[in-house]
Amino acid sequence: MPVVGVIGGGQLARMMHPAAINLGIELRVFAESEDSSAHQAAYRVGNYSSIDALNEFCLGLDALTFDHEHVPQQLLATLEANGVKVRPGSNALIHAQNKLIMREKLQALGLPMPAWQRATEASDIEKFISQHGPKIIVKTPIGGYDGKGVRVVSDVGQVTDWLENISSFGGALLLEQKVEFVSECAQLSARRPAGEFRAWPLAGTYQHNGVCSEVVAPFGDQTLQQRAVEIARKVAEGLSVVGVLAVEMFVSAEGDLLINELAMRPHNSGHFTQDACVTSQFEQHLRAVLDLPLGDTAMHAPAAVMINLLGVDDQNNLQDYFPAAMQRYPGIKFHSYQKSARSGRKMGHLNLVGNDLAALLEQGRQARKLIYSRGEG
Amino acid sequence: MPVVGVIGGGQLARMMHPAAINLGIELRVFAESEDSSAHQAAYRVGNYSSIDALNEFCLGLDALTFDHEHVPQQLLATLEANGVKVRPGSNALIHAQNKLIMREKLQALGLPMPAWQRATEASDIEKFISQHGPKIIVKTPIGGYDGKGVRVVSDVGQVTDWLENISSFGGALLLEQKVEFVSECAQLSARRPAGEFRAWPLAGTYQHNGVCSEVVAPFGDQTLQQRAVEIARKVAEGLSVVGVLAVEMFVSAEGDLLINELAMRPHNSGHFTQDACVTSQFEQHLRAVLDLPLGDTAMHAPAAVMINLLGVDDQNNLQDYFPAAMQRYPGIKFHSYQKSARSGRKMGHLNLVGNDLAALLEQGRQARKLIYSRGEG
Repeated sequence: MPVVGVIGGGQLARMMHPAAINLGIELRVFAESEDSSAHQAAYRVGNYSSIDALNEFCLGLDALTFDHEHVPQQLLATLEANGVKVRPGSNALIHAQNKLIMREKLQALGLPMPAWQRATEASDIEKFISQHGPKIIVKTPIGGYDGKGVRVVSDVGQVTDWLENISSFGGALLLEQKVEFVSECAQLSARRPAGEFRAWPLAGTYQHNGVCSEVVAPFGDQTLQQRAVEIARKVAEGLSVVGVLAVEMFVSAEGDLLINELAMRPHNSGHFTQDACVTSQFEQHLRAVLDLPLGDTAMHAPAAVMINLLGVDDQNNLQDYFPAAMQRYPGIKFHSYQKSARSGRKMGHLNLVGNDLAALLEQGRQARKLIYSRGEG
Repeated sequence: MPVVGVIGGGQLARMMHPAAINLGIELRVFAESEDSSAHQAAYRVGNYSSIDALNEFCLGLDALTFDHEHVPQQLLATLEANGVKVRPGSNALIHAQNKLIMREKLQALGLPMPAWQRATEASDIEKFISQHGPKIIVKTPIGGYDGKGVRVVSDVGQVTDWLENISSFGGALLLEQKVEFVSECAQLSARRPAGEFRAWPLAGTYQHNGVCSEVVAPFGDQTLQQRAVEIARKVAEGLSVVGVLAVEMFVSAEGDLLINELAMRPHNSGHFTQDACVTSQFEQHLRAVLDLPLGDTAMHAPAAVMINLLGVDDQNNLQDYFPAAMQRYPGIKFHSYQKSARSGRKMGHLNLVGNDLAALLEQGRQARKLIYSRGEG
């Protein structure tokens, strides 16, 4: 029986577990704490930034993979030198860990993206604002997620704190043109060491306060879909990605696709695949990191919608209000991450699969409203 | 977070685990041994026939349910008296534990079944053979499964051993007419304490040497399907079943449905629901025993096929040969139970979902052949 280790015990590790059980794979999670979302598969609890702890955890693994991008590249390279199959490899993962390295690489590959610039001092930022302003995007190259580490800036004074601590971000900031996009989308795909590549239907993504709120699939016309898959394939092959790859993109008013972010793991934009596709992103990720043949990514219905459930406060567990929504919507798939309540935290999601995307979206929003209002909506 | 306890660590408990993870339910399995199929959810390992061990296991459970029918009714009644929510309850489960009690109850409910008789001595059997022979079926009322405890008999001498040990079967044997059926089917349904009842599409079942080999869904015409659901509803309500109920039936040459066996838990005939239906039997069982609203049982494609994988010998783990089949059939869903190899043992299954039942069946059989031949077929 193959054994896959996962560093990080969040909901992504948690959701790999059902796929592992079905396929007969042993999943061992290196979790941050006893009450991690993936605690049921927790094999070790503690600090993953110790090489000794990592070495011990990797004994007997057929592949090591990740719930997040926070393990330093140096540690991963050491594990690789010790013979651990780190997937994605440290040389691929660095592009998801460091947004400046990602921009440089994508540029070298000739892939479409917003105008960008490396900034080490205030004058770099002032110059970029004068070229691409009045508003630009400033990002910390490392450590950001769900809108953290990203600011819309029209004056260099708005990032004084980051400039003062620039060494903690690797000595530079990333400046990006603020794209006037008409929509956002995510192309989810997977690649395995043998080279096989498969992409899911393109997903439309809707953010609220920098956090993914809703996802619909399929998204866009055939031309857009084909271009999105081509981009994903070039990224996956160009960066030697192994596992699931999410390429988040802007769609400009002219219909151009511009790469926004990359993630090399199962991704919030792909949760719809759990209930809408022949092979979910979690199963595919496990297949890919073990170099097993990849599964069919087709949807088994014309439309799918994913609705994120974010904590409404620090007391109420949203799961307690699932039954009222279950009663009203017997066709909705309910997913809970078993995380302690915190306002704005990703606590779970709903998947809806059917024929009519607009109707599913409306139903999913009604169900979310019912849950947010503690079953009284 | 609700907590469900499961007695028995076989593949049925194992397959409840993914559904539990998705719904945010904690699953605690009382497993027979450390290497049980459901070992990943094992909470306690040992002997479930000790009331002290059971009492301890039941602390903090919102519901207690089962992977099998082998827990004596007396123990379950004691747990119920202690306030444990045993689901299905001991008074329902007894009908799945004791086939004589089942026959008596179904007769009282006026439900269709083969001619049957309680036998306590050789002359009862001789008389039944003269009435319904030349061949009849003799069953031990308790302890049988997968063809064990069932014999086709034309002479009383063929069950001398059972007659000599009749006290170990509760003092009687069950005699049944050998029905000349044209096919077999199983109606899967679920009922929760609040009374809600939902049935899945009727499944056609094919046995080989008394063990389920293949399942197809949907099965039969609309009239047959409606009658099957009516029978299942009468059984579920008449016996106050809570959880998943499988009613295995013969279809006679005249098109009559005759009840063969009952199971009050997820059942091999319902594994297709994992990948073919909005709500799987494993998720529905958890919803039902927790008295949560039941989910939609519709299929999301016109046809589904389930192919059992039985051990070919005592050495080879069939899972090792999945990759060759995965390579050839990217649309097949692979399920492994992580059980040690044994000839004839249920080791896993394949689910196929699509438009053309005959094509799926052919593909599933080819995939099984490839796995059985160690990837060389």
